Amino acid sequence: MTTVAERPKLAWGPRVDLSGLPDLFEGTDIEPYTPPQAGIDNLGITSTDTFMVPGKGEVQVDFTGFVRVARSRPSAAGWNESVVYTNLIEMYMRGTTAGMGPIVVTLNPAYLSTGCLWTPPEDMGCNHPAKACRMAVNALFELPQLGMTLFNKEPILLTINDVRAIPPAGNPGLGRIYEKLPLYNRANPDGEPVADITALKFAMGTYLSEERIQQMRG
Amino acid sequence: MTTVAERPKLAWGPRVDLSGLPDLFEGTDIEPYTPPQAGIDNLGITSTDTFMVPGKGEVQVDFTGFVRVARSRPSAAGWNESVVYTNLIEMYMRGTTAGMGPIVVTLNPAYLSTGCLWTPPEDMGCNHPAKACRMAVNALFELPQLGMTLFNKEPILLTINDVRAIPPAGNPGLGRIYEKLPLYNRANPDGEPVADITALKFAMGTYLSEERIQQMRG
Repeated sequence: MTTVAERPKLAWGPRVDLSGLPDLFEGTDIEPYTPPQAGIDNLGITSTDTFMVPGKGEVQVDFTGFVRVARSRPSAAGWNESVVYTNLIEMYMRGTTAGMGPIVVTLNPAYLSTGCLWTPPEDMGCNHPAKACRMAVNALFELPQLGMTLFNKEPILLTINDVRAIPPAGNPGLGRIYEKLPLYNRANPDGEPVADITALKFAMGTYLSEERIQQMRG
Repeated sequence: MTTVAERPKLAWGPRVDLSGLPDLFEGTDIEPYTPPQAGIDNLGITSTDTFMVPGKGEVQVDFTGFVRVARSRPSAAGWNESVVYTNLIEMYMRGTTAGMGPIVVTLNPAYLSTGCLWTPPEDMGCNHPAKACRMAVNALFELPQLGMTLFNKEPILLTINDVRAIPPAGNPGLGRIYEKLPLYNRANPDGEPVADITALKFAMGTYLSEERIQQMRG
């Protein structure tokens, strides 16, 4: 059910070299204000997405699942100066709607969802500034009961502010959606949009065990 | 200097069939609250873009130029119900910086910049509602003095609210940029971003003459 992105053609930003990166699970220590070694974070995630579906109106769905985020070597040893690039290499979230059955969200293998953590320039001189985090994501929204998979073309921009440790486990975040982000039907990819995302709130969870990840993959 | 997008591989939304579309110039009447026949609008545009350039800080640039926007046949005859899809088929804007010489902005031919005009669902029952307008744009920012061309990967989302006539000639608009939108160097497209757009305000101008468009193409 889940899709691991393997060298997709289109990347929103720099690729993180995955070779030799340790897979980090439950039990990994997180140091505040300390750029960590490169690695792959296996984290829980919850998200509440609001969709506008023609004929059904607004549909709000609570999703739970996991993400696997590859992090680059920090560009500098110091917290303030360091930039860290990220690639979302796996995602699996599941939610249920009243009228349309379950929705399973995974990565769109045609795109590499990428992001970064950085210190906003105006805070660079502060003591212990919070970093900001952004990631451009392309997902598949599978509705097995309807036999339909939706996808976004414009990336969904997920942002986390007030990042005081990397990864930002436990931080709330927002999808920066202005009015609507169109979704298309994978069976008619060049057609008109069939629904929109109108709002998205999420929260990063903490490190999960390898077993938990495996269970959720379903 | 200018780039007309011809069947780019990647389109952010539906393609508008250009065959038989009239080219509309200065002198074209615009009726408020009336979905117009399909056509290609040749309009002036001004934009003030703010860039964050490493080593130089924030650089604000005023651009002037034109856009050519292909509009689809409205999906309905009524103003309220009608959706109109748009393709940005040509753009040329020029601005000047103090330290980096001129900047010329054109379309990135690898993408089709697309958009739409629609009535926000909550206003559908109103008398004479304002429509909203969004367009996802991929541009080239050419800096001839530096021998460098920058481009965006994530689309720049240009929005116009309070649209009471199509085209929204004379309306102000905003680029919906959250914190920053990364720009890449065309000479090193897979590398790290080299600058960011941090803010973008624009205003649609009125219909231009064919001669004026031709002059500006330079």
